Amino acid sequence: MITIRDVKTILTAPEGINLVVVKIETSEPGLYGLGCATFTQRYLTVASAIEDYLKPFLIGKDVQRIEDIWQTAMVSGYWRNGPEFNNALSGVDMALWDIKGKIAGLPVYQLLGGKCREGAAIYKHADGSSKEEVEENARAFMEQGVRYIRCQMGLYGGRGQRIFKPENALDGVYYDPKAYMRGIVELFEHLRGKLGWEIEFIHDVHERLSPIDAVAFAKQMEPFNLFYLEDALPPEQIEWYRTIRQHTVTPIAMGELFNNPNEWLPLMSNRLIDFIRVHISQVGGITPAKKMTSMAEAFGIRTAWHGPGDVSPVGHAANVHLDISSINFGIQEWNGFKEEVYEVFSGCPEEKDGYVYPNDLPGLGIDIDEEKAKKYPCSNVLPKWTLARLPDGTSARP
Amino acid sequence: MITIRDVKTILTAPEGINLVVVKIETSEPGLYGLGCATFTQRYLTVASAIEDYLKPFLIGKDVQRIEDIWQTAMVSGYWRNGPEFNNALSGVDMALWDIKGKIAGLPVYQLLGGKCREGAAIYKHADGSSKEEVEENARAFMEQGVRYIRCQMGLYGGRGQRIFKPENALDGVYYDPKAYMRGIVELFEHLRGKLGWEIEFIHDVHERLSPIDAVAFAKQMEPFNLFYLEDALPPEQIEWYRTIRQHTVTPIAMGELFNNPNEWLPLMSNRLIDFIRVHISQVGGITPAKKMTSMAEAFGIRTAWHGPGDVSPVGHAANVHLDISSINFGIQEWNGFKEEVYEVFSGCPEEKDGYVYPNDLPGLGIDIDEEKAKKYPCSNVLPKWTLARLPDGTSARP
Amino acid sequence: MITIRDVKTILTAPEGINLVVVKIETSEPGLYGLGCATFTQRYLTVASAIEDYLKPFLIGKDVQRIEDIWQTAMVSGYWRNGPEFNNALSGVDMALWDIKGKIAGLPVYQLLGGKCREGAAIYKHADGSSKEEVEENARAFMEQGVRYIRCQMGLYGGRGQRIFKPENALDGVYYDPKAYMRGIVELFEHLRGKLGWEIEFIHDVHERLSPIDAVAFAKQMEPFNLFYLEDALPPEQIEWYRTIRQHTVTPIAMGELFNNPNEWLPLMSNRLIDFIRVHISQVGGITPAKKMTSMAEAFGIRTAWHGPGDVSPVGHAANVHLDISSINFGIQEWNGFKEEVYEVFSGCPEEKDGYVYPNDLPGLGIDIDEEKAKKYPCSNVLPKWTLARLPDGTSARP
Amino acid sequence: MITIRDVKTILTAPEGINLVVVKIETSEPGLYGLGCATFTQRYLTVASAIEDYLKPFLIGKDVQRIEDIWQTAMVSGYWRNGPEFNNALSGVDMALWDIKGKIAGLPVYQLLGGKCREGAAIYKHADGSSKEEVEENARAFMEQGVRYIRCQMGLYGGRGQRIFKPENALDGVYYDPKAYMRGIVELFEHLRGKLGWEIEFIHDVHERLSPIDAVAFAKQMEPFNLFYLEDALPPEQIEWYRTIRQHTVTPIAMGELFNNPNEWLPLMSNRLIDFIRVHISQVGGITPAKKMTSMAEAFGIRTAWHGPGDVSPVGHAANVHLDISSINFGIQEWNGFKEEVYEVFSGCPEEKDGYVYPNDLPGLGIDIDEEKAKKYPCSNVLPKWTLARLPDGTSARP
Repeated sequence: MITIRDVKTILTAPEGINLVVVKIETSEPGLYGLGCATFTQRYLTVASAIEDYLKPFLIGKDVQRIEDIWQTAMVSGYWRNGPEFNNALSGVDMALWDIKGKIAGLPVYQLLGGKCREGAAIYKHADGSSKEEVEENARAFMEQGVRYIRCQMGLYGGRGQRIFKPENALDGVYYDPKAYMRGIVELFEHLRGKLGWEIEFIHDVHERLSPIDAVAFAKQMEPFNLFYLEDALPPEQIEWYRTIRQHTVTPIAMGELFNNPNEWLPLMSNRLIDFIRVHISQVGGITPAKKMTSMAEAFGIRTAWHGPGDVSPVGHAANVHLDISSINFGIQEWNGFKEEVYEVFSGCPEEKDGYVYPNDLPGLGIDIDEEKAKKYPCSNVLPKWTLARLPDGTSARP
Repeated sequence: MITIRDVKTILTAPEGINLVVVKIETSEPGLYGLGCATFTQRYLTVASAIEDYLKPFLIGKDVQRIEDIWQTAMVSGYWRNGPEFNNALSGVDMALWDIKGKIAGLPVYQLLGGKCREGAAIYKHADGSSKEEVEENARAFMEQGVRYIRCQMGLYGGRGQRIFKPENALDGVYYDPKAYMRGIVELFEHLRGKLGWEIEFIHDVHERLSPIDAVAFAKQMEPFNLFYLEDALPPEQIEWYRTIRQHTVTPIAMGELFNNPNEWLPLMSNRLIDFIRVHISQVGGITPAKKMTSMAEAFGIRTAWHGPGDVSPVGHAANVHLDISSINFGIQEWNGFKEEVYEVFSGCPEEKDGYVYPNDLPGLGIDIDEEKAKKYPCSNVLPKWTLARLPDGTSARP
Repeated sequence: MITIRDVKTILTAPEGINLVVVKIETSEPGLYGLGCATFTQRYLTVASAIEDYLKPFLIGKDVQRIEDIWQTAMVSGYWRNGPEFNNALSGVDMALWDIKGKIAGLPVYQLLGGKCREGAAIYKHADGSSKEEVEENARAFMEQGVRYIRCQMGLYGGRGQRIFKPENALDGVYYDPKAYMRGIVELFEHLRGKLGWEIEFIHDVHERLSPIDAVAFAKQMEPFNLFYLEDALPPEQIEWYRTIRQHTVTPIAMGELFNNPNEWLPLMSNRLIDFIRVHISQVGGITPAKKMTSMAEAFGIRTAWHGPGDVSPVGHAANVHLDISSINFGIQEWNGFKEEVYEVFSGCPEEKDGYVYPNDLPGLGIDIDEEKAKKYPCSNVLPKWTLARLPDGTSARP
Repeated sequence: MITIRDVKTILTAPEGINLVVVKIETSEPGLYGLGCATFTQRYLTVASAIEDYLKPFLIGKDVQRIEDIWQTAMVSGYWRNGPEFNNALSGVDMALWDIKGKIAGLPVYQLLGGKCREGAAIYKHADGSSKEEVEENARAFMEQGVRYIRCQMGLYGGRGQRIFKPENALDGVYYDPKAYMRGIVELFEHLRGKLGWEIEFIHDVHERLSPIDAVAFAKQMEPFNLFYLEDALPPEQIEWYRTIRQHTVTPIAMGELFNNPNEWLPLMSNRLIDFIRVHISQVGGITPAKKMTSMAEAFGIRTAWHGPGDVSPVGHAANVHLDISSINFGIQEWNGFKEEVYEVFSGCPEEKDGYVYPNDLPGLGIDIDEEKAKKYPCSNVLPKWTLARLPDGTSARP
């Protein structure tokens, strides 16, 4: 029996974004696994969860019993289903799948049933402060062969409008939901007019609308035939997806904020969303993500795992291993890596002509140079973008 | 009491499509019946079900007890409701109705309550690789007096678009669902513009869309006043018809893939479809089809039995006998027969001015020349069209 | 790439029950896998599905792409979701998992996430023609350490009562549903009185009641605290589980007859059953069973795979590998094997003190001696027990 | 083509109950058919419907087109679905099936699919003014071999209690619903105590309770394991069956008063009743009854056609032909005929050992001696029993 000898938490920020990677070392010399536990805005708390609680819980356990470890760890603190611990557990879960793949001499996608496709179709982010700038950035992606593009103007909430604040308004990122709605409708009129209909568009509301505005906005966007509309509602208001579904056929993606089964289960079993879009480390790793995928298949729902810069290459690899082995894969969010990332991580998934491909090494196929990782230390700066405010100063969903 | 003396399975392919016909011979010299058991892609498996299981089950039984035979045979293997055995049972069921008609000296439609109409209105298939070609083919049918036409461009899924595949993509019939949707909307804009509104159109999705795309497509097709939209969803996702119904009044037909009551019963009793379109041999023959028709009548649903080339003339006769004796008949799919079929089968239903007519011979009115049938042996070539794939290589519903 | 070189169908009946085993041989010398495709009452039809259709479909394909093979094979005949082909596909699916485990050098349970428990708790069948005989047989099992016992009196439908038939009643296995209900209530009053409450009881209705009687019976059985009541309704009437749930908290198990997602999906997502009890080969193998298990976990439902004599040791191994690696395992039906089975199959799961254990060999851990298998040829005798009839001669569910 | 030459209405009352029989004579000498149109309390109005409306509508029509005749006749007066015309139409419908059977040389049950059983199990009426008298009458039936018995005490509403009326109370049949409920519960306690559990009991509320009392009564009767409880609610209050179903598993039969699809369709499709119990002539004959049977089968509901003295032997024959050819037959109400009936009608169904059997003559197998029929003229006496009143004089359901 191969057991867990040590659990290490590696904190690194090669792109300037705090990443959390778990390294599990085993009783077998040279055999270790890596997992992504990145909750970038709380990386120290996640590190505490790993170091103070999961590490002592895990040492000496059989590395092969992933299901049992996942289940027992999940309830080990009694209170559960929160982002800090779920991410920590994800780091462990992915590392154990990585180890299992290495023991088997097989890439993880083989353990998950083998390839259903060679590569995973990706979408990229075209932002801009004007319609023309978004168009230009989208065109650049189209020339790379990318066929799915997320278009935002002024980023989330369409920041950039003039805001009428009350006197002595507090600090924050102000935006005007109504102006945002109008602006995005105009943006897509522009994009469809200029770029035609042979390209698939995505738009991310990033929860910046009140429920009824989200309903109206989803309907107003219907003429543009989105591939999907993302995060139209915050997790606290997901029952409103029923109302969205009543009013429009715009495809709906939701989930990066989910960490509780009561968030995804009713939406899926009632067929109120079309793409399940969780941040895999946020739900606890490959083990729950694979189960969620199986359930989504039964309900006619596709996957679209969260995949921006606050996912480590290990997490990206986990995404891609799931993508190519799941029949109901939909799309993969993908922005590529900066140079510094390749310095720290090897074996990163590779993009070509609008698809991303895993490598064929055993396990997840990613390695980390711990020395190089130290070159890019994390820094605990509170994010400003999460301090979103409505014109009158009301705290809003970020 | 007239009993079953022998059960024969006749395999023949006069049009190049494997047909399975059951011949039941009775204790009465010269009295026999024919039934259709055609599951063309699995004809040898159906033949085993007939020869190895139904034949010994049936010999010696009273030919008149169709209901008891159907019920006891259906559960005779304990496991049930599958396409192979249902087709085999259909061959028996139709043959017994054929025999009953001959004993009575009456066409089967008389046993089913007599004619409600003289002929059954038909629809034909106008295909083409361009809008103009579909239009031209539709015009040809209109000149024949056909008033209902199914129009497909590039056949199912609108094959023929440029597909962006990943590297090393597997073999298969690739299509792009989004391009297909756009293409078919354009096709019907064209057809309505050129051919006007005095002709009834049908379109067959052939399950080639994801659920939310099927919902959107049904809504997008609403302006063209289809007679119905066929098979918008695969049988595994039929609960999504509820969502389709919320969003559009496009009439919905479904069912050629059905073989289990849990497929048709909820759709019918919840009034989520408008035409029940089963392949009669696939549900087990005339006995279950007649019951299904009675239930459909109560729920305001019409019939549209599956009727392409992979139905034998015996099956077509069963369709037409049901069509003309059922108050809630809707439409009959009909492509006519090639010359070689008439060489093997006599008494085939006849088409005239957009209607198909049964003959008035006792029973189903069809006979087979077993010697001629041998001239056209079946051949077990795996179909390629069922290996449908999305652009990224994902296995799709055929 | 290791490819499929040959597919063989092995028919053998060491216990007198026809078993169907698929052997997939690969391009790698000595590397092969075994799968169970046993639909004992239609073994020849299943063999046709394998030999005539799956074999040519599979040869040359990559053995590792189980998901893609499963999905493309399932729809390869267009019509689908039936017992004959699902069983054939299961033979292939299990064999591919067996091969994958051998390639990995790991038991299949490791690929499925590792052990959640060492052994799977089993239940056995205590039958008898009187209350006392059932009690005695149950006691014998209790002495073996078995803690879950299925108790039947007069087998299914409580056969053995005096039946009042009409004149000239047809052949069949007659039973009286009302007398059966009364008898079983008395049986469990007796068993609880004699054997106490520290033993878990199961009872199998085997679909022998009309819906309203099933509802009443489930309620009448509530005082006996069953571990579960099995197959209270036939698959054609599963919507009545909603009524059963309204009236009683008796735990409900269902599924050995299921082969279509429209059977299990609504029952599970509406939480109308407590144990999903499919015959794994009947739904298509390990691939769909694992997905079903994941979905069941989300809905609070446990597994209880069908496991009597018409499952080969390969199928039993698949059951047990799933059992010990699935968090929401409930119970395993288990009757053990006769001597002759061990002559033909090696590596069979082993029972001890009320648990069954897999071995730790790579793959499913079962091997077959093809020469010995020939010593026990199958025989195609139609089963008599499936010809169930009510007292008046009505064909009933077997 | 054989056409309708004449339509005759035969009114006769050999048992003292007004019967209405339709005789259709055809263009074929000697070929005629009989149907039952008995609405005994309105026999003259039914006769008018036949003579004044159906007869001229029918003459010259093809006798074989039953479905078309039924459908066109049903709507021929625009207003429809009422008992007077439905009974008239039933007379025609049955007569046409009788003729069709004679043309075919086959009993009608053969046209309907053949026998599913040899005879139809019957229930009889045990009445009495005391528990002991009911017991005694039930015992007498049991000795005849009858295994299903309807037990009433004081007939409908348990008449016979002392009633506290207000002054100057109007004429009527007074009963006390609460006393009735208590009395019947006591009756069945007595019957189960004296006659045991090996006999199946039915009780007919005959709509004599307010809805909530009906709900409570159905629940109070549950311990006696009725075969079914009949007509617990009047047709105007059938939505209350939902409440009954919530509270008890007592099997529910309903329908003798139904003549409108909106009465039976929701109850059946929502699985709120267990036995559909229409008076076949009241719904329009064999044609709608057969369809209703098919639908009932799909929903797990059985048939229990109304069959007391106000059904002519022709109607009884129609019942029994349906009974033995329908898989989901449940039970047949049957009281037998008095001597005078045999004088007028020949070929009546025969009872033996608790079953009733049709004869095997072509058609329905019944003939009428029109001269003898005249010996027993009908008399138009208003029924008194329909003037039911509650203790305070309120008009109640009869």
